[in-house]
Amino acid sequence: MSLIVQKFGGSSVKDAQRIRNVAGIIAETYLAGNDVIVVLSAQGDTTDDLIAKAEEINPHASKREMDMLLSTGEQISVALCAMALEAMGLPCVSLTAWQVGIQSTAVHSDARIKKIDSERIQAELDQHRIVIVTGFQGVDRNGDVTTLGRGGSDTSAVALAAAFRADLCQIYTDVDGVYTTDPRIVPNAKKLEEITYDEMLELASQGAQVLHNRSVELAKKFRVNLEVVSSLERKPGTKVKEVTKVEKTNIAGVAKDTSIARVALIGLQHNPGVAFQVFDLLSKHNINVDVILQSIGREDTKDITFTVHKKDLEESQKVLEEHKEALKFDHIETDESIGKVSIVGAGLMSNCGVAARMFEALYEAGINIQMINTSEIRVSVLLDEEDVNRAVRAIHDKFFGDL
Amino acid sequence: MSLIVQKFGGSSVKDAQRIRNVAGIIAETYLAGNDVIVVLSAQGDTTDDLIAKAEEINPHASKREMDMLLSTGEQISVALCAMALEAMGLPCVSLTAWQVGIQSTAVHSDARIKKIDSERIQAELDQHRIVIVTGFQGVDRNGDVTTLGRGGSDTSAVALAAAFRADLCQIYTDVDGVYTTDPRIVPNAKKLEEITYDEMLELASQGAQVLHNRSVELAKKFRVNLEVVSSLERKPGTKVKEVTKVEKTNIAGVAKDTSIARVALIGLQHNPGVAFQVFDLLSKHNINVDVILQSIGREDTKDITFTVHKKDLEESQKVLEEHKEALKFDHIETDESIGKVSIVGAGLMSNCGVAARMFEALYEAGINIQMINTSEIRVSVLLDEEDVNRAVRAIHDKFFGDL
Repeated sequence: MSLIVQKFGGSSVKDAQRIRNVAGIIAETYLAGNDVIVVLSAQGDTTDDLIAKAEEINPHASKREMDMLLSTGEQISVALCAMALEAMGLPCVSLTAWQVGIQSTAVHSDARIKKIDSERIQAELDQHRIVIVTGFQGVDRNGDVTTLGRGGSDTSAVALAAAFRADLCQIYTDVDGVYTTDPRIVPNAKKLEEITYDEMLELASQGAQVLHNRSVELAKKFRVNLEVVSSLERKPGTKVKEVTKVEKTNIAGVAKDTSIARVALIGLQHNPGVAFQVFDLLSKHNINVDVILQSIGREDTKDITFTVHKKDLEESQKVLEEHKEALKFDHIETDESIGKVSIVGAGLMSNCGVAARMFEALYEAGINIQMINTSEIRVSVLLDEEDVNRAVRAIHDKFFGDL
Repeated sequence: MSLIVQKFGGSSVKDAQRIRNVAGIIAETYLAGNDVIVVLSAQGDTTDDLIAKAEEINPHASKREMDMLLSTGEQISVALCAMALEAMGLPCVSLTAWQVGIQSTAVHSDARIKKIDSERIQAELDQHRIVIVTGFQGVDRNGDVTTLGRGGSDTSAVALAAAFRADLCQIYTDVDGVYTTDPRIVPNAKKLEEITYDEMLELASQGAQVLHNRSVELAKKFRVNLEVVSSLERKPGTKVKEVTKVEKTNIAGVAKDTSIARVALIGLQHNPGVAFQVFDLLSKHNINVDVILQSIGREDTKDITFTVHKKDLEESQKVLEEHKEALKFDHIETDESIGKVSIVGAGLMSNCGVAARMFEALYEAGINIQMINTSEIRVSVLLDEEDVNRAVRAIHDKFFGDL
């Protein structure tokens, strides 16, 4: 007998029919003799509907009250799913984060899970009940409801799998696994049987929508066996694990990200520590910076270029302008029409030909590279936004075209 | 400085505009220097929408999961109301029943409040925050969410007023007080300035929709000063208290109830304890019985006639038929086309002319009385359903016509 955690996203529970379908998957797992902990997101558009209600009343509502409001979405899902299992005659119980004791930090709308109490869930499992838990939420030490921010339900599932030493954590989505790139852009994209945590992390960070990197990081830390699998079709998904079989290609996939903007600080003085000052300032305003490039500018100055999420662009500019005197730069240039394309693979940097092949593909397609950024298992290039899809196709074709 | 509990029902918070209106009332009370605890129901049709969702999945869902589902309705209301107060710059916090510690029995869908923890609310009041609490719900000793059944939000408000020794508990509704009878039937119905707990109890039990008798019972027990007041118009409502001024009329109001059905057990043997057996049996099936009449039947048998809620009619028949042999009756007769009209007044039975005036009014209107039932402060008659509104008008005219 195994303990399996199964997480279903919002589109998988969006209506009565989908909930019945989910109940069918859970029932199959349970009737095969497994203990099952289910984690659910809010139904389809529920969260958006609730946000619209809030904005009609107060567009600047506190995050504490937003969490109070939004956390009802998952509660509705778990209750309805329990009812669907009850209709099949299966013993089950739905539980909210506070009932389980999913203790989180007090950072509303972006809380981190600190600890999961095992008592209530274990008692229900001991009674052979299927346990259905609200994803995306926690409770802080004051007893206030928190939400976990982006990728929150995946994180809830992985955290529960870690806390209960589950044999497997299945993330059910409306795609059937992790692909070598976005199949909507490259129709012959290939589904991966396996991928390492690190590869998945880079793919997730680089724009693959399947799993959020927070959940992959947590899975890696606690060695949780993850599987990305379709809730609509019964076929094998993609396993995410520590080590995968050596495959004939050196990269796991091609990812794109068009949600970024470029910021350039032009004409910085050559003061020691200026880069630290810039990024420390942005970090204090909760602005995440991605690709960074520092170059020599005109007349003995230097330029620092970096990318931020498009939503953070305005705030970044504002914060930097406010500190213009202290940072001593000449002016700021920004560009929103850029995109990033990355290749990810465990064996990538130990095989120096790989990056070259990527650049070759772009050269052959006549695509100009603006910036390059690399990690141990990833190479990213910044391009004009309009070149992004063409670049993904060219690179995917270069690496996977002959499969 | 006073502590005031204000309860708003579902229609008072049904949309953004109504919520802003409610926030305005709360703000006025708070800015006048009072501590305020607010109790809210679910928005307008939310509960019905959630029930529809549940029924699509499982028409026989467990009450535990129904409570889990339905309790999200009030949580949405309190979060939205807090946001409206935040938009006005007022310090406030929304709290669910489990956050407050509204401890209830474990009877899902019909729980009773056992105890209210004071710690969290008191801490928030000490911070001069307006506290907004979900009505209609509690948490049982297992940490499971319960709902309080009909009149639950009124009961939550009165229980909080009792627990915190509030100076006043205001029940805001879409009518502006308690009337001598339903103004939709009798246009010249008169709003009562004051009414006693007992009169209000009888009126509530006899079909007046304004306050549920559970909340009035609780208010009476803990001497909570209740006020029924309109959320739409700023004018005095009706005060419910222990003793009211002597008024020139002997009755407080005329109530009607057409939700009842009549059941008659015909041809019962003259066994001792047969009435006990009948009503004990019904009580064990949670069927409430109202007016009871026992009469001598044909051939040395007797008949027992009583009324039940229409929704319980089928179940009553089934239960009684199942025990036909033990109870030894001949057959059951039922009638759904009946109604009940009552007059209520503190001084009623000590003034024997009052009941006679009621019967006179019915006689003059040519309305036939099927059964009569009285209490210390009430006289009820059972009539044909089609005579009910005419009876209300005739009786009201007799007692209040010259006002």
